[in-house]
Amino acid sequence: MATHRLVSRNVPSPLLKDEALHRRAIDLHRAHQGKIEISLRAPLETRDDLSLAYSPGVAAACRAIEADPKELRNLSIAGRAIAVVTDGSAVLGLGRIGPAAAMPVMEGKAALFRRFAGLDAWPICLHAESSDEIVDAVRAIAPGFAGINLEDIAAPECFEVEDRLQDLGIPVMHDDQHGTAIVLLAALMGAAKLAGKELGDLRVVIAGAGAAGTAIAKLLRCVSFSSEVCQPVQEVILCDSKGAIHRDRKGLIKEKRDLLAFTNLRHREGTVHEVLEGADVFIGVSQGGLLDADDVRRMAPHPILFPMANPTPEIDPDVALAAGAIVVGTGRSDYPNQVNNVLAFPGVFRGAIDAGATSITQEMKLAAAKALAEFVGEPTPSRVLPGPFEEGVAEAVAAAVRDAWERHPG
Amino acid sequence: MATHRLVSRNVPSPLLKDEALHRRAIDLHRAHQGKIEISLRAPLETRDDLSLAYSPGVAAACRAIEADPKELRNLSIAGRAIAVVTDGSAVLGLGRIGPAAAMPVMEGKAALFRRFAGLDAWPICLHAESSDEIVDAVRAIAPGFAGINLEDIAAPECFEVEDRLQDLGIPVMHDDQHGTAIVLLAALMGAAKLAGKELGDLRVVIAGAGAAGTAIAKLLRCVSFSSEVCQPVQEVILCDSKGAIHRDRKGLIKEKRDLLAFTNLRHREGTVHEVLEGADVFIGVSQGGLLDADDVRRMAPHPILFPMANPTPEIDPDVALAAGAIVVGTGRSDYPNQVNNVLAFPGVFRGAIDAGATSITQEMKLAAAKALAEFVGEPTPSRVLPGPFEEGVAEAVAAAVRDAWERHPG
Repeated sequence: MATHRLVSRNVPSPLLKDEALHRRAIDLHRAHQGKIEISLRAPLETRDDLSLAYSPGVAAACRAIEADPKELRNLSIAGRAIAVVTDGSAVLGLGRIGPAAAMPVMEGKAALFRRFAGLDAWPICLHAESSDEIVDAVRAIAPGFAGINLEDIAAPECFEVEDRLQDLGIPVMHDDQHGTAIVLLAALMGAAKLAGKELGDLRVVIAGAGAAGTAIAKLLRCVSFSSEVCQPVQEVILCDSKGAIHRDRKGLIKEKRDLLAFTNLRHREGTVHEVLEGADVFIGVSQGGLLDADDVRRMAPHPILFPMANPTPEIDPDVALAAGAIVVGTGRSDYPNQVNNVLAFPGVFRGAIDAGATSITQEMKLAAAKALAEFVGEPTPSRVLPGPFEEGVAEAVAAAVRDAWERHPG
Repeated sequence: MATHRLVSRNVPSPLLKDEALHRRAIDLHRAHQGKIEISLRAPLETRDDLSLAYSPGVAAACRAIEADPKELRNLSIAGRAIAVVTDGSAVLGLGRIGPAAAMPVMEGKAALFRRFAGLDAWPICLHAESSDEIVDAVRAIAPGFAGINLEDIAAPECFEVEDRLQDLGIPVMHDDQHGTAIVLLAALMGAAKLAGKELGDLRVVIAGAGAAGTAIAKLLRCVSFSSEVCQPVQEVILCDSKGAIHRDRKGLIKEKRDLLAFTNLRHREGTVHEVLEGADVFIGVSQGGLLDADDVRRMAPHPILFPMANPTPEIDPDVALAAGAIVVGTGRSDYPNQVNNVLAFPGVFRGAIDAGATSITQEMKLAAAKALAEFVGEPTPSRVLPGPFEEGVAEAVAAAVRDAWERHPG
C-alpha cells in the first residue's frame, strides 16, 4: 500500500481518480461478494410448492420438453439464459489474466443483461488452452442456453471460435467485436450528420486490427450482408502497430490478409499518421497516446475521432476538439459520447431471442445501430449516442433487431 | 388429451392424483418460465454504479484476483456458485431423456440450493456422449464455481465421472449417490433405535445396484473412511434385477464385481426375496411393486423398510406396516419418512464451501447423516427424518460437515 501511494502522488490526475474508483470498486465487490445472485421465481415454502417445482411434479415439465423440444423455452430458464463465456485471454485492457481473474467482468456483464434486458445471464469462465477447447465447452453447455455472449477472447482465436459456433441454432455473438461495432456505427451516423457528410463518402482509418477493429471494418463496409440495402463507408484503412495493412506487406497472418478483400482497396501504405492525412474519421481501438493535435489538423475538414482505448484514449478528447474535431467519442464514461457496449448487447440478445433467431446477422447489427442513432434524435457534438440509463434504449434496439430478423432471417 | 383421459379413468387413484399434480406443475413452470432468475446484489442505477460494478472499476477486482487467486471467492459469485451438472442420462424415473428435457430438474435443484442454503446454483445441461465429454466440460467450466453437484447421470458412468473430477480442488458430489445415502443412513439410525437394534448388528438387503444403491452400501459399510471411527452395518447384500450380487455370478461388470470387496461377504445367493429372509432392513432403489406382505413377514422381527422407488414404491407402505414393519420410509412426500435428498445436499455443499473443503469425504457424509438423525431428537415410527421445511436443518448439516472437514481434511 505504501508503495502504491508513493507512485500515485506522481501520476497525472486521471489515474489518481482511477485509484480512488478502484478502491471503491474493490469495496463494492467485497461487500456484496460479487454482483449477482439467484432468486426464486416460484414459491418454495410448502410441501405442495416443493412437489410442483421439484419432485414429483417436475417430471411433467421434463416429459413435456421431451415430447416437444420447443417447450424448453416456455417451461424453464433456458428461454432467457445467456452464457457469458470467456477464456480470460483478452480481458479489458488487462490482457491474458485467465478465467478466474476474468470473473468480475463476466459477472458484471451478467448483471447488465438483467438490468437492461431482463435476461438471465451466467458467467462461464473457461479453463481452455485452444480454440478447440473453447468450442467444445460451449457446444457441451449449449442445451441450457438461449444465447451465447462470447467475451474477452483474444484475436485471432475469437474469430474462429465465433465462426465455428454458428451452427448451434442459438445466437452466438462475440461482443468485443460486434457490440463495439454496432455502437460505433451508431455514433458515426450522428457524427457524420453533424459534419455534413454522407457515410458513403467517408474515408475511415482504424487503429487496431484485433477483434473490435475487424468487426467495425466489416460493419462499415457492409461485409456479409445477405440482402439488406446497406450504404458502405467509401474507404476503410485498418492499421496495426506496424501501420496500414496493405497488400504488399510481408508476413501478414491469414486473418489480416483476409481484411484486404474489403479494406484499403486504394492500397495506401505508411504509418497510421501518414494514412490519417485527409481522412474523415479516426477510430482507435489500440493504445493510449497514439495521436496528437497535428494528426487531427492533417485530417479532412470537420474530422471525427473515436479514440476508444481504455483507460487512456489514443488522443485526449480536449486536444482533439481544440485541433478542430467536430465530434469526439471515447470508451470512458467521464467524457461525452461514450462508445459503451451496454447500449447494444442487451437489446441485441433480447431482440434475437424474442425473434427466435438462430444467429445474429449483419442486418440485425445494422438495425441495432440505426435504432441507437434514431433514439438520439437530433445529434449534437456532445451527444451522438444515448446514455446507458435512458429509458427505452434496449427496448428500441430489441425491436429493431427482432424486426430485422423477421425481414431477413439468417 | 382425449386418449390420456380415457387411460386415466382406468388407473389407480395415486396416478390420478399425480395427473392433477402434473397439470399444476406444468402450469407453474409455464407461468414463471421456470423457477429461478438472476437478480442484482449491487445497485445499477447510475453512471457511478456502472463504473464500479463494470468498466472501468471492475478492472480492480480482476487485478486483485490475478494477484491473489483466493480473492475470487471474496470478490465474485464464484464463492457461492454451484454447477448442477447433468447429461440427462438418468433423470428421475424417466431415464435417458437428454440434457434439454432434464433442465426442469436441474433448475429445480438450483432453486433448492438458494432456498435452503443461500447458495447460487446454475443448471448446466450437457450435450455429452461419453464420460470423457462430461469430465472435459466440467473441467473447462470449473474456474467459475465453488462446487459441482453432479445429477441424474447414469451408472456406471456416474462413478467414473465423479472419481475423475476429484482433483478439481473444489467439492464434487454426485447427489443421486451420496445425497440419497446420507439421508437414508440418517433415517436408518432412527429406525434402528426404534427397533432396538444396533447398526453394527443389522443385515441389510438393497434392491438396486445403480448409483444410489452403491453409495448407500459404501456408506453403511464405512468404505473409504480415512480416519473417523465408524461402526459399519454388519452385512449388506446388494441385489440387481437378477438377484443377489455374489462372487460366483457370471458376467458381472467391473463396477458390480468391485462391490464384493465389502458386500455379501457371506456369499448369499438367490433372488431378492430369498436373501431378504431373516434380514433386518430392506432398502429399495429399484422399481415399484417388487415386494409383498409375505416378503416382509419372512424378514427378522421388527423389520425396517425403505422402498424408495418413484413414483410407485417397491411395496405399499401400508401393506408393509400391516405385515409387521416397524418403520417404513419412501421417496414420496405423501407418506411419512420421505427420504428426500433436499435434507442433505444444501447443507453438505454449504458446509463444504464454508470449510474451504476440496472434496466431500465419507466422514463429512457420516457427519451429515448423524446431524440429521440428531435433529429429529427422539424418533417415532412416522418421524425418523426431519421435514424439508423445518427451520435449521441445512444449518445443522452444514455445521456438522464443516466440522468433519476441519477434524479430518480429505
